[in-house]
Amino acid sequence: MSAVLPPPATAGMSQAEIDTPALLLDLDAFEANLETLDQTLQGRRVKVRPHAKSHKCARIALAQMARGAVGVCCQKVSEAEALVDGGVTNVMVSNEVVGESKLRRLARLARRAQVLVLADHPDNVRALEAAAVAEGSTLEVLVEVDVGASRCGVAPGEPAAELASLIAAQTRLRFGGIHAYQGGAQHLRTPAERETAITRAVALVRETVAAMRKRGLQPATITGAGTGTYPLEAGSGLYNEIQPGSYVFMDADYGRNLESDGRPVHTFRQSLFILATVMSRPTPTRAVVDVGLKAHSVDSGMPLVADVEGAKYLRASDEHGVIELPPGTDVPLGTKIRLIPGHCDPTVNLYDWLVCLRAGHVEDIWPISARGAFY
Amino acid sequence: MSAVLPPPATAGMSQAEIDTPALLLDLDAFEANLETLDQTLQGRRVKVRPHAKSHKCARIALAQMARGAVGVCCQKVSEAEALVDGGVTNVMVSNEVVGESKLRRLARLARRAQVLVLADHPDNVRALEAAAVAEGSTLEVLVEVDVGASRCGVAPGEPAAELASLIAAQTRLRFGGIHAYQGGAQHLRTPAERETAITRAVALVRETVAAMRKRGLQPATITGAGTGTYPLEAGSGLYNEIQPGSYVFMDADYGRNLESDGRPVHTFRQSLFILATVMSRPTPTRAVVDVGLKAHSVDSGMPLVADVEGAKYLRASDEHGVIELPPGTDVPLGTKIRLIPGHCDPTVNLYDWLVCLRAGHVEDIWPISARGAFY
Repeated sequence: MSAVLPPPATAGMSQAEIDTPALLLDLDAFEANLETLDQTLQGRRVKVRPHAKSHKCARIALAQMARGAVGVCCQKVSEAEALVDGGVTNVMVSNEVVGESKLRRLARLARRAQVLVLADHPDNVRALEAAAVAEGSTLEVLVEVDVGASRCGVAPGEPAAELASLIAAQTRLRFGGIHAYQGGAQHLRTPAERETAITRAVALVRETVAAMRKRGLQPATITGAGTGTYPLEAGSGLYNEIQPGSYVFMDADYGRNLESDGRPVHTFRQSLFILATVMSRPTPTRAVVDVGLKAHSVDSGMPLVADVEGAKYLRASDEHGVIELPPGTDVPLGTKIRLIPGHCDPTVNLYDWLVCLRAGHVEDIWPISARGAFY
Repeated sequence: MSAVLPPPATAGMSQAEIDTPALLLDLDAFEANLETLDQTLQGRRVKVRPHAKSHKCARIALAQMARGAVGVCCQKVSEAEALVDGGVTNVMVSNEVVGESKLRRLARLARRAQVLVLADHPDNVRALEAAAVAEGSTLEVLVEVDVGASRCGVAPGEPAAELASLIAAQTRLRFGGIHAYQGGAQHLRTPAERETAITRAVALVRETVAAMRKRGLQPATITGAGTGTYPLEAGSGLYNEIQPGSYVFMDADYGRNLESDGRPVHTFRQSLFILATVMSRPTPTRAVVDVGLKAHSVDSGMPLVADVEGAKYLRASDEHGVIELPPGTDVPLGTKIRLIPGHCDPTVNLYDWLVCLRAGHVEDIWPISARGAFY
């Protein structure tokens, strides 16, 4: 059985002493990001429920709740279990849960934490009710509405209202509101594109609220939004909860989002890095590092090289990353360099530990509580 | 701390009862692949040292050795440790190992198993020697030669021979031979392209052997090759060891390699699948499954849908896969469908367990011993 690997560092170590590959958290940048989110929401009356699928770390979830988050989101039942085991008391599985064993576990979890979940199909509503009855618990269920992401969710308006009625008619389910996440809008590059997408989403939510009210149903929570668009939902006057996740870390792909002046979005700082070791220097312009496909997810492109001016991570194989160096760059064998992940969420999922640094030294090591928790 | 997840199945279960996402091994296909490799090598005088980075599973490594493999390859020290813990007695880290703590662990491992490793830099040779001296063990070291992959490795010919001399001059290192893996050739689509690449690699190895012999050094082992090209290296009259890995499983990307008649290479059967659950049916032509970026590596493209005629896995987000269905396809909520991974190696690394099936039922469950072992 694959044991959890030992941490790559101990408290007090310098960055150069950390074993690699390692996932680093710059605590100053991380704490600044928590603060910045609050600042960008000043004057808004929205609750914050950060998405824990980005960090999968109970320590971070608790830090977010200590700053006023009402709870966290996650995507899987096993992820929710790991977070509740880590002390989180309020968790929304912002996803459909299908299959009897998962549903029973979800309903069981609702006996020791506040548990919310989505539905987009009547059969699933009835299965949620059966599980809650069997476990003697209550589940709060939100209707997932497709507001443009073309993934899960019922159609806005009447179909969503009909499903809400079915939820409200169950004995062990509580109708919680509307989940309207426009995932496709998060990485649209220009502010105009993002605004167009969210304006459309808001209109569809408004139509849905009206259809529900006609049936005498009031959606208490209207939730959605991610790091790329949350100021728009927060300013809509309709959404009353937002779910940004990546803002705590940032990544290369979010770094490609632009402000209206054409510069990269600069709201949040990069706090997450991968530490790599140079394990081969075959030519003057090539360095090979020990971070490849099994230590970094390339779904949103290659990582960026943070510490070497002009260096470019060209390609990844399973356990190698090939970096092109400007001629004359002094990067000897054994050098440790930091990479900025292309996409933080699936990269974090490859690590057991988050090595927390301040002023170049290890201050703490946090377990990634829900690493690999995909059931 | 992220505990290892419980297995998604127990022996005797039918496929439909397995929790998802799950990694399935079709035992009939797997065993046929082991047999086919032997058959394709009949009459060749090459040793087989399969690459365990594909499966990371001690049970599979032992099955390969029971059929005559001399040992296995892997890419990392922690991977080697996990395999030795699982009973493997001979392991080559087919990679450079850099950094004192890793080198000490490698040298320590050589006290309880036969351990081979590569080098491509004189500083690394001296560090290997120091570690072996400190641990009182002996390491067999092969020179990695770049024969066209443009990753690690010294240049062929004299530079490789010079490094071999340095290895041979150490007290605790044994010069083991030449490692000449043409990784870039494995996925060239036509037989002519693969043959051109390997013909060139063989010429460079020949030049290197000559340079070593001039210095009085005889490379005992000349090793390399993968699933895409191994018949070429095995027939070269020069390589005396081959390292195919993916042949036990196959994947969608290897499935795109062609024979000379333009048909897909049909040497090996697909034995590895991901089991997914349909968790949303938002439209008549869209199904969403619970397998996304955290349950499948998309570096070589999206997975293929094995069980639904005409279905196409369009895109992945963290925990969702969007599948397009032909109109009228009957795939209700909760249906379990099998996917063929785009790239087996980094996908296997996302799972703790391999669920072994025969005739539609679970026969055994094997731990993926070195899952996540990247130190």
